[in-house]
Amino acid sequence: MDPEAPGLTLDDVREAQRRIQHKIDRTPVMTSATLDSAVGARLFFKCENFQKAGAFKARGATNAVFSLSDEQARRGVATHSSGNHGAALARAARLRQIPAVVVVPRDAARIKRESVERYGGKVVLCEPTLRSREETLERVIADSGAILIHPYNDLRVMAGQGTVALELLETVPDLDCILCPVGGGGLLSGVATAAKGVNPSIRVIGVEPAAADDAARSLRAGRIVTNANPSTIADGLRANLGDRTFLQIRRTVDEIVTVTEESIVGAMRQIWEIMKILVEPSGAVPYAAAADGKADISGKRVGIILTGGNVDLDSLPWRKR
Amino acid sequence: MDPEAPGLTLDDVREAQRRIQHKIDRTPVMTSATLDSAVGARLFFKCENFQKAGAFKARGATNAVFSLSDEQARRGVATHSSGNHGAALARAARLRQIPAVVVVPRDAARIKRESVERYGGKVVLCEPTLRSREETLERVIADSGAILIHPYNDLRVMAGQGTVALELLETVPDLDCILCPVGGGGLLSGVATAAKGVNPSIRVIGVEPAAADDAARSLRAGRIVTNANPSTIADGLRANLGDRTFLQIRRTVDEIVTVTEESIVGAMRQIWEIMKILVEPSGAVPYAAAADGKADISGKRVGIILTGGNVDLDSLPWRKR
Repeated sequence: MDPEAPGLTLDDVREAQRRIQHKIDRTPVMTSATLDSAVGARLFFKCENFQKAGAFKARGATNAVFSLSDEQARRGVATHSSGNHGAALARAARLRQIPAVVVVPRDAARIKRESVERYGGKVVLCEPTLRSREETLERVIADSGAILIHPYNDLRVMAGQGTVALELLETVPDLDCILCPVGGGGLLSGVATAAKGVNPSIRVIGVEPAAADDAARSLRAGRIVTNANPSTIADGLRANLGDRTFLQIRRTVDEIVTVTEESIVGAMRQIWEIMKILVEPSGAVPYAAAADGKADISGKRVGIILTGGNVDLDSLPWRKR
Repeated sequence: MDPEAPGLTLDDVREAQRRIQHKIDRTPVMTSATLDSAVGARLFFKCENFQKAGAFKARGATNAVFSLSDEQARRGVATHSSGNHGAALARAARLRQIPAVVVVPRDAARIKRESVERYGGKVVLCEPTLRSREETLERVIADSGAILIHPYNDLRVMAGQGTVALELLETVPDLDCILCPVGGGGLLSGVATAAKGVNPSIRVIGVEPAAADDAARSLRAGRIVTNANPSTIADGLRANLGDRTFLQIRRTVDEIVTVTEESIVGAMRQIWEIMKILVEPSGAVPYAAAADGKADISGKRVGIILTGGNVDLDSLPWRKR
């Protein structure tokens, strides 16, 4: 992508906020004296695990669907997703009373398919390969004329995700930094654009699993580098950056740090036990960086995006002690 | 106990609120459109799982400890507890900088002992029998001169627990009824006294496990009837009513209903999955009554006390589907 291409702006995020604010929840910001002591900083957790459909993905999908013209909207929307974007898109489409089709790999957890269907979306299964996913989605779009809403590499989606940072800064204006997970980069793009736009001195730090560290490597290389076969429990963060998100992250993010699998599971368990809230592995990744001293936050006021709470309670990642 | 004996009053609860309000958290009230649809009522969940030390018990223990004269306080406090009251008392004693001793049965979960010790309380182990517990506590009190703070059969504790209803009604004034779990009856006594005092037309319904239905049987019999050997997963609700709580409940509570073990586990899982918050089995009991149609709440505005969130994540009560 042309490095001179126009990227996402604070105005885009503000416009997204006006568009979606009555269609999503304004989520609470929670604090924990115990976790503050554990990391030596003041932590402000933005609880997107309480968001509609259980994750921040509702923001971007809703902004994208309500950005469509009536003519576009009539064609319906389509995407591929093995996670929260599918359910979020189905929910947004139902709000606009248009059809949504979600291409889901056969081996995705049953609960993911069910949540798309619960919101009235149509699930089309594909084989668990990149090629089958793309071919299946292309066929769906060719057959139905539906508009593609990519899970992250889409300015409308990125703008919607950025609204979480606007809300966080409305609630806690004087943050020193924000820790945000990075998978495909839609959330991090939006958050960094919004936060830096509001206050350029806020440090924005992306956090990703060491086992899927394409964002860190891409920034170092100055071009998109992909994960060969990412095996991380943080299933929301296995995707590679897209050209739009890469460009935006390069322009706005201060630093990317990585965390181990053990650290992610430990962080998730701490959040459950101490804060008494459910967060999915991907959502525990930024706190893992704080708990592990991977980011320089000592004594600072730190925003942490808890991205989602959709967990399969039948297979939790800890064993009997 | 003399049925003419003075009981708990709304003024006692209001005084407790003034005494403890800066020493405990004002917990949020959460709602869920999905659970509202599931039960056909408007539900307002008072989230005491987010309370200090993880449960409403912080309210009663703090009120009791800060009701002591300086002379009494110097002697320290003691109690028996296999659950949340022990940690809550240790925390309150630390706030007042006095010693606390908690008698804990040998077979109690390790996490319970650890939480007493985390707040600086001293744990004295006893055998898991009523007799050993009472003898051990008597010895502790004789040796140390500590003041007994009973987990529930104590007007100071009952008054403190009642503050949760004052807060709930400050946030949601127009409730039609409140569903509240009943074990030893400290919480239900306080909640019913406060709610009826503020608005006599609010229906207050106690909910208990069918496997520990001493409160329902006691009210029917007009005298305290005990659970022989209660085996319910709702470990916070195994206790029998005391004479003070029995009297107060008889005076103020409209109805006691019971729920099955299966229903408790199902309710707990629904709250976790849909609300994304941790609630312990005892805390899921009132929602179980709503979900099972055990209380007449159709179309009503219903307060539900989520009493606590202290759960052993290594032994959750559901198996692989």
